[in-house]
Amino acid sequence: MPELRKDPVIGRWVIISTERSNVSLDFRKDIEVEAATKSCAFCEGNEHMTPPEILAYRKYGTQKDKPGWWVRVVPNKYPVLGIEGQTKRTGESLYDKMSGIGAHEVIIETAEHNRELPDIEDKKAEDIICAYKDRIADLRRDFRFEYILIFKNHGKAAGASVAHPHSQLIALPMVPVRVKQEQIGSKQYFDFKERCVFCDIISYELANESRVITENDSFAAVCPYASRFPFETWILPKKHFSHFSDIDKHDVPRLTQIMKTVLGKINKALENPPYNYLIHTNPLKEPNSAFYHWHIELMPKLTRVAGFEWGTGFYINPVPPEEAARFLREEV
Amino acid sequence: MPELRKDPVIGRWVIISTERSNVSLDFRKDIEVEAATKSCAFCEGNEHMTPPEILAYRKYGTQKDKPGWWVRVVPNKYPVLGIEGQTKRTGESLYDKMSGIGAHEVIIETAEHNRELPDIEDKKAEDIICAYKDRIADLRRDFRFEYILIFKNHGKAAGASVAHPHSQLIALPMVPVRVKQEQIGSKQYFDFKERCVFCDIISYELANESRVITENDSFAAVCPYASRFPFETWILPKKHFSHFSDIDKHDVPRLTQIMKTVLGKINKALENPPYNYLIHTNPLKEPNSAFYHWHIELMPKLTRVAGFEWGTGFYINPVPPEEAARFLREEV
Repeated sequence: MPELRKDPVIGRWVIISTERSNVSLDFRKDIEVEAATKSCAFCEGNEHMTPPEILAYRKYGTQKDKPGWWVRVVPNKYPVLGIEGQTKRTGESLYDKMSGIGAHEVIIETAEHNRELPDIEDKKAEDIICAYKDRIADLRRDFRFEYILIFKNHGKAAGASVAHPHSQLIALPMVPVRVKQEQIGSKQYFDFKERCVFCDIISYELANESRVITENDSFAAVCPYASRFPFETWILPKKHFSHFSDIDKHDVPRLTQIMKTVLGKINKALENPPYNYLIHTNPLKEPNSAFYHWHIELMPKLTRVAGFEWGTGFYINPVPPEEAARFLREEV
Repeated sequence: MPELRKDPVIGRWVIISTERSNVSLDFRKDIEVEAATKSCAFCEGNEHMTPPEILAYRKYGTQKDKPGWWVRVVPNKYPVLGIEGQTKRTGESLYDKMSGIGAHEVIIETAEHNRELPDIEDKKAEDIICAYKDRIADLRRDFRFEYILIFKNHGKAAGASVAHPHSQLIALPMVPVRVKQEQIGSKQYFDFKERCVFCDIISYELANESRVITENDSFAAVCPYASRFPFETWILPKKHFSHFSDIDKHDVPRLTQIMKTVLGKINKALENPPYNYLIHTNPLKEPNSAFYHWHIELMPKLTRVAGFEWGTGFYINPVPPEEAARFLREEV
């Protein structure tokens, strides 16, 4: 008998097929390792092919927009929002619109075309997290912005158009509805229990163990109870913080380590699948919140099993999170 | 400058790239016409390959589970929920779950493997709508069910695993969160305006015309103001009804006609793209609602432009709905 499970944060029900006793790993692969070409704008040596860099972690003495960097942030050449102008909200009969003001940046995670996070040396990998944090610190001073999305689309099936490892940042003049729904849900829980729902999830999961992939002093990686997708993984800070950008400098290496571990396991278990991750954090202008808890949601995109929810608006997950977590914890 | 637009029902913002002056129709096709094979369980003559039929519209004198039908409803051979048992809600620490009770049926839309809705003769096509209505009328007597999803996944990229034209029905023991969000949003609008937001959308769109694809006496087909996807189309009944299953017998031919027209135009404009449609209707046990208005949401799945929102949780639509509607209205 399949099981219907409710996400404790936003109240979304998903169907989990708990009947299967073995995780089938026969998913279609979508990623092919592509050789670096002279035409990759994100490769070292091709800095002139991108807009001028906003930030780079580079060797002492090397020049802006020249080789010598290991993490480099540039404006997206094809931004989905424009940086110039004022945010203006206007009505049009019953509708509401706003000028498309925002920032759209690319965080190039490595100078090397084919080096994925698990194979990047620790110190350099930590600077990817530092770049996320530094860009938020800079952009939050721009009062037009209400929210900053940091996400990674890896592989064509997950929406990436460039193979060279990169993540993206979009600063928005409003709070996305998904974040609002999480805020509403976690506030309802807090009003009822006087506890943070994410803190409760972390302590239950760590005590229970069946959905834990790995943990370290500061972070836990779990397959959530009401996983929408096979091998969906949440990385949660053990200490309650509502804003990702308040991450402690001691926690940067720990976050890097757990992300390297989790992605390494997922790459091994699912043979380098396309995936997305997204940092869920409190809106920029909101003060520290007792009920909202930042976290990372990571979703491998396994094409063989995706698609159903697209039509139904309803998630059906053929791999129970307990099976996924056990596999990632013990077998890879 | 791109534009941010807010959906008036659930408050979701989307980015619309209004800068493009021409709709690019260069989308990747995904559907290949597949020859009927002896192995297609949905083809006439292969009735023994499906579970016994629940309902069929067939020639007088022909036998159950034998040839002679034009619309046939059977249980899904691989149901996502099980029909037997009681719905039992239980807790597991902070989590909630429910036994996976439900119905999962397949509505085979034609006896012929390669005949799509626009090419099915009117009277037979109307019986697809009648089958939706009849199955809801039957299943709503089962008090375990709270909601019935009727949807179509057409083409592999849209989640269909069988090429033979079919739609699906899933009866659920709870109301999906997406429907709840629409109910909350439309109630807020009603509380403020004392009007149905969908009725307001219809009268504004029909007066304004720029986003209208086609209309008839009872239905309007529009590309919604805050379209999430290129060529997203909503089919709305002009008269206010909250439950799809209350559709009038005179409106069945009109709904069939507008669906045939819209799908015919989309197939022509986008060269037979994969697509999904989903009937959004009021929960089964709720009385007629003054604020909720049933409608059909249809989304062509154009792989070249999809994927971004998967990672961001945020929709970016490169084709303004005005361009999409103009193209579908005037050029095909």
